[in-house]
Amino acid sequence: MDNETLRSIKNRRSLRSFEPEQLRDNELETIVNAGLFAPSAVNQQSWHFTVIQNKDIMKRMSEDTKEYLKKSDNPHFLEMVQRADFSIFHNAPSALLVSGDTKAVMPEADCAAAMQNILLAAESLGIGSCWVDTPVHLFNSEKAEQWKRELGIPEGYKPLHAACLGYKSSAPAPEAPIRKENAVNYIR
Amino acid sequence: MDNETLRSIKNRRSLRSFEPEQLRDNELETIVNAGLFAPSAVNQQSWHFTVIQNKDIMKRMSEDTKEYLKKSDNPHFLEMVQRADFSIFHNAPSALLVSGDTKAVMPEADCAAAMQNILLAAESLGIGSCWVDTPVHLFNSEKAEQWKRELGIPEGYKPLHAACLGYKSSAPAPEAPIRKENAVNYIR
Repeated sequence: MDNETLRSIKNRRSLRSFEPEQLRDNELETIVNAGLFAPSAVNQQSWHFTVIQNKDIMKRMSEDTKEYLKKSDNPHFLEMVQRADFSIFHNAPSALLVSGDTKAVMPEADCAAAMQNILLAAESLGIGSCWVDTPVHLFNSEKAEQWKRELGIPEGYKPLHAACLGYKSSAPAPEAPIRKENAVNYIR
Repeated sequence: MDNETLRSIKNRRSLRSFEPEQLRDNELETIVNAGLFAPSAVNQQSWHFTVIQNKDIMKRMSEDTKEYLKKSDNPHFLEMVQRADFSIFHNAPSALLVSGDTKAVMPEADCAAAMQNILLAAESLGIGSCWVDTPVHLFNSEKAEQWKRELGIPEGYKPLHAACLGYKSSAPAPEAPIRKENAVNYIR
């Protein structure tokens, strides 16, 4: 069975290389709007979206996140922050934060469903994306409240998921990782 | 902007009324396969899918869940379990559980992204779905281990999300809930 939605689902890759050109406003609005149409537990729509297109702000976020992660004991982070050229947004022209209402029933799941809609909407428009975890750590740092204010994240919300967005570079997309076996069981 | 993927995202509704006819095997396989193609934190693919098509098992799961929720102090659950005709699967012919590897980095988000792929794949095939929370509570009950064994859920995994699946009934689909305002902020 095949259709365009299934192809968007199968062809979406986690891309870490983007053209520097900024996305068009109507593309970003279409992508974020797809997030708004996710289902949510008891229709709480427990999400808030921040679209960041400002290079300087993204650079400062990246630096502050790396500064914070230097104190981590996670070897993956420590390796990452050593690299001077490493950007937590993979040099994408746009980034998106999905923040969850901490008092909602299931903000983690609501915001993850919204993020998946966002990645698929981007793919359907030929736009590359990568769901990234690193930027979320900035909001565990001592600068969390300052950044939340600067980015207009509402009181009571916490960034749970982040993505980079941009036009796909000419670098070949990675292959889909091999799917784990025995991940499905049918009870007939 | 418009395309088929965006329409699948926008047209998906949470349906609670289904035709009794069972879905075809290739439809269910296509739908579950879409779940397998979700992104996951550090590619852990921390999910396991259980597709349940057996009416008797679904009935017993519904009864055991209701029995457990009778002891809850949540008025929403207490009202629900009073209704003798209430099925936790809304009388759908198929149900799907997404279980997360409890030792993974982000099983909640991985499994939610997989579930969203599943709902969109179903919609793209004209198949109705509803993401439901109630069946997950069965796995907090004293019968959790017994049910996990019966359903073949692997050791170390826990059902995090559930959905009902079936052909859409002739009942009119609900309108999309009004979207909350001020949910998006642009930093340009």
